[in-house]
Amino acid sequence: MSVTSAQGFRAAGATAGLKASGSSDVALVVNDGPDHHVAAVFTSNRVEAAPVTWSRQAVSDGRADAVFLNSGGANACTGARGFQDTHRTAELVATTLGCSALDVVVCSTGLIGEFLPMERIEAGVGLTAEALATDGADDAARAIMTTDSVPKQATVSRDGWSVGGMAKGAGMLAPGLATMLCVVTTDVVTDAATLDAALRTATASTFDRVDSDGCMSTNDTVVLLASGASGVQADADEVTAAVTEVCASLARQLVADAEGASHDIAVEVRSAATELEAVEVARSVTRSNLFKAAIFGKDPNWGRVLAAVGTTDAAFDPTTIDVAVNGVQVCRSSSVGDDRDLVDLEPREVRVVIDLHAGDATATVWTNDLTHEYVHENSAYST
Amino acid sequence: MSVTSAQGFRAAGATAGLKASGSSDVALVVNDGPDHHVAAVFTSNRVEAAPVTWSRQAVSDGRADAVFLNSGGANACTGARGFQDTHRTAELVATTLGCSALDVVVCSTGLIGEFLPMERIEAGVGLTAEALATDGADDAARAIMTTDSVPKQATVSRDGWSVGGMAKGAGMLAPGLATMLCVVTTDVVTDAATLDAALRTATASTFDRVDSDGCMSTNDTVVLLASGASGVQADADEVTAAVTEVCASLARQLVADAEGASHDIAVEVRSAATELEAVEVARSVTRSNLFKAAIFGKDPNWGRVLAAVGTTDAAFDPTTIDVAVNGVQVCRSSSVGDDRDLVDLEPREVRVVIDLHAGDATATVWTNDLTHEYVHENSAYST
Repeated sequence: MSVTSAQGFRAAGATAGLKASGSSDVALVVNDGPDHHVAAVFTSNRVEAAPVTWSRQAVSDGRADAVFLNSGGANACTGARGFQDTHRTAELVATTLGCSALDVVVCSTGLIGEFLPMERIEAGVGLTAEALATDGADDAARAIMTTDSVPKQATVSRDGWSVGGMAKGAGMLAPGLATMLCVVTTDVVTDAATLDAALRTATASTFDRVDSDGCMSTNDTVVLLASGASGVQADADEVTAAVTEVCASLARQLVADAEGASHDIAVEVRSAATELEAVEVARSVTRSNLFKAAIFGKDPNWGRVLAAVGTTDAAFDPTTIDVAVNGVQVCRSSSVGDDRDLVDLEPREVRVVIDLHAGDATATVWTNDLTHEYVHENSAYST
Repeated sequence: MSVTSAQGFRAAGATAGLKASGSSDVALVVNDGPDHHVAAVFTSNRVEAAPVTWSRQAVSDGRADAVFLNSGGANACTGARGFQDTHRTAELVATTLGCSALDVVVCSTGLIGEFLPMERIEAGVGLTAEALATDGADDAARAIMTTDSVPKQATVSRDGWSVGGMAKGAGMLAPGLATMLCVVTTDVVTDAATLDAALRTATASTFDRVDSDGCMSTNDTVVLLASGASGVQADADEVTAAVTEVCASLARQLVADAEGASHDIAVEVRSAATELEAVEVARSVTRSNLFKAAIFGKDPNWGRVLAAVGTTDAAFDPTTIDVAVNGVQVCRSSSVGDDRDLVDLEPREVRVVIDLHAGDATATVWTNDLTHEYVHENSAYST
């Protein structure tokens, strides 16, 4: 149920004809209130898509009534015409719902550098508005998929209130923000400032620590809507924890469904001087094509881990690093450790633990292996 | 002839049994003088191999008599024992040749995290010393190959003097320094300081601008030896130009032979504010797996170029970038340009030109496409 599990929300998915496959491709999530708080985070890519530019503005006052999303086209690198198309989409949604266009968030995903077929988008606005339902979450989650093989949804329930979310994303998955669209809803009674802080805290430790392929998108958007419809108040920590739980589940689902991947890899850095350095070191490993190809080949090639760690500026003594792969201490003091043949890389989940012996900070970044299928899917991309 | 084309040098390659394939795996290059100047640059990876640690020290006084190289084992991440092995190798070479161990540069390449079989290395020192010849360059160039499919050699002749070089490298190719071992020799009469400046200038615009797979090695070494045996003097600019010409040829050969690649891609950034920013932008594109996979699929996916450019901090207006692929202006002012179907990606060489409209600086970084073969070779690595 995800985005409609919280009270005060309706959602829908429909088929507007944007995808060659004929699958559903437009979704609408509406917040019926009584509150209409919104928080959002966007890609840090300077080449941002038209809907990102629009939506930054739309959420800046902390209020939003609806989110319209389309797959089958990113509306990125489409210049002034692309921005006009997004603006027109928001106006249409606003007219249909009877709200202000500036309270409509717009998200797009698909191929970069192509104009949206606006007559189909326009039809899609009508179709989704007609289909809005308090159990429409599954349809919406399905409509935003591109190369995703399954819809991603998560819900957590608290005493009298809940948080639910849906996400899409299977490639171009790298922070800030993995490449993705995500809508999270809650019926807790809160305020826009608390909501904003909760979302930033949640994404920093979840979506921002997924790095499937090192490629940052132009369209990443995470929107959090709060209706207050439960009538239940919760303190900031409770809200943050629940939102984080939903984001963590969705982030993990993104990794599990990444294009062509055969392993999900958690790179955990321990005993770093700072959390930022732990992330920097983990990230250098999650971006090593050689390490990722080795894991695909079920080769616990810890030399490639150390080669990646050595490219960073983090505080450590290059001669005292330890590395364990799936519990086997294959590298001890930056040299040969236990027998690498002891490592079992048959399971899909792989855990690499790097100990820097430089402090007390720790961080985990998730990635995938580099496979033939990844190359195949991304050399023949079509939404 | 490469490293023995200049007067005053002998070289050899031999089979010491380090490679399972039974191919030659040890090489020796000797400078018979009268000068014994040396300059060298090494990997900037903080996790550096034992031979790199040794050789930094060996060249620090500007003098070297010989370079001993082995493939079939990187002697990286091998701790104190690894350093002792390198030290012992240098001592053996020195004893055999009658020089000081501190004038022997040692280079290793192959799998990280394994100890060298020292009895075979010791035998290899004897075998190469016996085989030293003034026409031994081809044998030496062949003995340092790992996953290289062909030896890489280059020679330029000037009026009475010459520069020649050999290199190996086919994966873990990223700057500072592409992953590689390279020995360059010259018989020009010069001094150690001039030689050092010439080598740094040459590598900065050649090897440092090859980025096949974004992975920096633990063993990269480029050594330049000068014998003065021609008796001909040349000014610093002439020496720099000749060394650069040899390095450029070798760097281009590395790209052409990169593991599993089907396209060589030159990413040229024009009108950047500074050369450093031009390199930063070019590098962001050469490290985009999505862009590289698209080129493998012969898809001129300029959206992935812009998505990569947008992740950098270089000066530019994100709405005014132009991109041409093989002469077709597929992106104009960060939006849709000429028909992407006009781009011919059948040829192996691909040229991507990115115009930032932000200044007068330009730079080109070379990379390869991301192919099934790259994944295959690197998921089943063996030297």
